Amino acid sequence: MTGFDETRRFKACVLIVSDSRSIGATEERVGPLLRDLLEPMAEIIKIDVVPDNMASITRALISMSLNLGADLILTSGGTGFSPRDVTPEATMMVSTKMAPGFAEEMRRVSTSITPHGMLSRAVSVIYEKTLIINMPGSPKAVRECFDAISPALPHAIETLRGESGSEPEDHRHRFDKGIVPDR
Amino acid sequence: MTGFDETRRFKACVLIVSDSRSIGATEERVGPLLRDLLEPMAEIIKIDVVPDNMASITRALISMSLNLGADLILTSGGTGFSPRDVTPEATMMVSTKMAPGFAEEMRRVSTSITPHGMLSRAVSVIYEKTLIINMPGSPKAVRECFDAISPALPHAIETLRGESGSEPEDHRHRFDKGIVPDR
Amino acid sequence: MTGFDETRRFKACVLIVSDSRSIGATEERVGPLLRDLLEPMAEIIKIDVVPDNMASITRALISMSLNLGADLILTSGGTGFSPRDVTPEATMMVSTKMAPGFAEEMRRVSTSITPHGMLSRAVSVIYEKTLIINMPGSPKAVRECFDAISPALPHAIETLRGESGSEPEDHRHRFDKGIVPDR
Repeated sequence: MTGFDETRRFKACVLIVSDSRSIGATEERVGPLLRDLLEPMAEIIKIDVVPDNMASITRALISMSLNLGADLILTSGGTGFSPRDVTPEATMMVSTKMAPGFAEEMRRVSTSITPHGMLSRAVSVIYEKTLIINMPGSPKAVRECFDAISPALPHAIETLRGESGSEPEDHRHRFDKGIVPDR
Repeated sequence: MTGFDETRRFKACVLIVSDSRSIGATEERVGPLLRDLLEPMAEIIKIDVVPDNMASITRALISMSLNLGADLILTSGGTGFSPRDVTPEATMMVSTKMAPGFAEEMRRVSTSITPHGMLSRAVSVIYEKTLIINMPGSPKAVRECFDAISPALPHAIETLRGESGSEPEDHRHRFDKGIVPDR
Repeated sequence: MTGFDETRRFKACVLIVSDSRSIGATEERVGPLLRDLLEPMAEIIKIDVVPDNMASITRALISMSLNLGADLILTSGGTGFSPRDVTPEATMMVSTKMAPGFAEEMRRVSTSITPHGMLSRAVSVIYEKTLIINMPGSPKAVRECFDAISPALPHAIETLRGESGSEPEDHRHRFDKGIVPDR
């Protein structure tokens, strides 16, 4: 993390959820695209690929948050109606707080472009200190959705880090210990 | 089901949730209306009426899905603020996957027509291989909501059936056995 | 409650959720503002202030509903991304029925004004006979959100009270006893 400017940018991870063990041509484009789109506000510290499998997805999300200290995780893929799509369910499993505004806004914008936007089952949640947002699988839809939510991301991350406003340490601990159920 | 063209159309059921044991004049119009509206894309194989009662609603939904093989179930009624309205709660009980885009879009469109659109507590979910969508009770509102979601229905059903893209059999089984909690 | 005209107006409570034990200048303005805004349709029978703490919030919501008989509770504050913000989680804990239309519409309207509207994690739910809606913390945002939802409030309360349409007593009891899980 040499050269990482912590004062101005935040740390992002990308998790590509793919229905085959080998990443396809389409998925290959999502990582570089998100790197370009996030460039002004964040550094992508990790891009990973996992199959459509609950355990693989949750394990990757938890590791990116706790081990890598990601402020933001953008997933791509696995949010549709195919029986194998389980990205939203896996994301809900690690959620410690709801944050539905991003998912609702992406769905609203996508649906104004095509009725198939309704088929996105994407969720957006908070896991501890990390914001997790499910993005679509196709580069075109990723770009449309990113444009819809990106203006709100920097302030979301700053607030989540506790950088704006005072945060009583005991409150935070009480929440960590008392409310979130064991998983 | 003679004459049912499985290659071009899907199987739909309508579940009317009524607050009295006898179906009223308004509810009587919803079945034929939905039959007309669905005609270009689906065949209604069953129209049933149940009272506002959790057990009756869930039993009917499960039977339409597992016994009749419905690709789509549209419920009508029981989604408002009356203490007896429990259709969304019953629908959530059988949900194996979330699919919030239909409910959000219906509420957005209804609310643009009348502020009372906000009072719809409708949900849209997936139960195994069946898409279940809560519709309003009044024929006028049913028509408005159907117009909002119908362009996305055929692709939703096709994808849910696993007809677009490959679906590894073991994935599906893993999901069935491992994720959905006992009920 | 002398002079309270039960036939035309409903009973509202305001719960200000503040991150310090003493209420600040901004929060002090929300109570009088909501009193003015609700004036045509409701009487505010209680304004309370609690810290950002799950137990304090849920205790206040339950007391306002069961002891004071509030038809409507508007909370203010604690719905953002700060680690101490737990108002939506506390509200979900007392929820007996979902009522997402108000929260979705407030988020849609706020997001059309500023992208930071997406950061609202507000929920709207029913607790027994009481509608509970999470409002923002700032007076400006409270006014914008109130304007968005107020046209639907009177009918929501009337329906929730069981004043429109018949409500079989046994249905209500069955719901109370059977569906809501112990907490």
